[in-house]
Amino acid sequence: MAEYSISNLNKVVRGSKRATYDVETIHTILDDGFLCHIAYVYNHQAIVIPTAYARKGDKIYIHGSLKNRMMLSLLEAGTASISVTHLDGLVLARSAFHHSANYRSVNIFGTVKKVEDPIEKMEALKYVLNHMIPGHWDNVRQPNEKEFNATLVLEIHIETASAKIRAEGVVDDKDDYNSSIWAGVVPIKQVAYDPISDEQLPENTKIPEEVLRYVSKNKS
Amino acid sequence: MAEYSISNLNKVVRGSKRATYDVETIHTILDDGFLCHIAYVYNHQAIVIPTAYARKGDKIYIHGSLKNRMMLSLLEAGTASISVTHLDGLVLARSAFHHSANYRSVNIFGTVKKVEDPIEKMEALKYVLNHMIPGHWDNVRQPNEKEFNATLVLEIHIETASAKIRAEGVVDDKDDYNSSIWAGVVPIKQVAYDPISDEQLPENTKIPEEVLRYVSKNKS
Repeated sequence: MAEYSISNLNKVVRGSKRATYDVETIHTILDDGFLCHIAYVYNHQAIVIPTAYARKGDKIYIHGSLKNRMMLSLLEAGTASISVTHLDGLVLARSAFHHSANYRSVNIFGTVKKVEDPIEKMEALKYVLNHMIPGHWDNVRQPNEKEFNATLVLEIHIETASAKIRAEGVVDDKDDYNSSIWAGVVPIKQVAYDPISDEQLPENTKIPEEVLRYVSKNKS
Repeated sequence: MAEYSISNLNKVVRGSKRATYDVETIHTILDDGFLCHIAYVYNHQAIVIPTAYARKGDKIYIHGSLKNRMMLSLLEAGTASISVTHLDGLVLARSAFHHSANYRSVNIFGTVKKVEDPIEKMEALKYVLNHMIPGHWDNVRQPNEKEFNATLVLEIHIETASAKIRAEGVVDDKDDYNSSIWAGVVPIKQVAYDPISDEQLPENTKIPEEVLRYVSKNKS
């Protein structure tokens, strides 16, 4: 079982029984989302922004405008912290203290660099789009030279990573089980609904299989 | 219309037409969620963690174990950046370049302090629980002295804040409208499902109104 190395940065101290450094678990959680929160240091201040991403091996790719201040500052910072969190449920205990959530969460620390090689850069753009809707890249018009040159692609190499997973019911204090206070779990899920086609499409334009597959996989 | 002041930290440069500093808009987006990503500087490195929160006026409250290294480092850092993001849809354009997402997102910069006053601290714990399920605090066993003392509550005073909202359809290049490539929006929503009552409850324990109301309000 391959594991990410444990450093001061990614070592999970609290709730460590829920922690894992297993590479496969971490990759699966990363592949289940496409929105991450990325933090970096700017003028001695931490800044966190939400952004789309893709994972390929031990690399995370993000993209943005060449003029995007956040992206440029992130590149200047050289290192970044990334969090991907999937909320799976509210854990409503008998006691306020034992309220919790079910979730799958990954924390990454990595080094940031600009993707310069044009072939690698185009591949990264493909990964990001396909990370949202698998296989959709081939359905759309790919970037022209102007668009390609206006886009900045950053690669964050995963140096250390950890995952935390909570996937269980209520855990209350012994004494509280005698009370008549209700307790339980409210499942939570991010779902997709049927696509709303653009009004300006030619009549009978078919929704691509890849989009339909994504929606059916993520329906409520 | 009250607005948060604009500084170098919260000024939205890219996509500024989607930006707002309106206090009411920002508060509404904050009140629509209960999971934030909070970043701070630790050993010259940015760290981002997901955590539950509540908003009351211009203050954000978070809580954790007294021994939580992240919470203690955050307190030591003294300032924090917070992001709250609601994903509302995937915007699938004809061109890869114009792919986007519909979302409501808030970014906050604030100063961190420990809530020392016991009355204020208990109130903050109530806010965090009620921010998840409005009114549920009164249904559960409230913290005893031991639990109360083992809990660290931090207050982040909002110094600057901005919101970005995208809530529209596909916007493609003129020329691409003549193509036969499909385009559209896939709506996305975080939904709640019927509560799963704890198996160890006494028979006929009723699910509280507040929980049922939350679920019915957040159903798919």
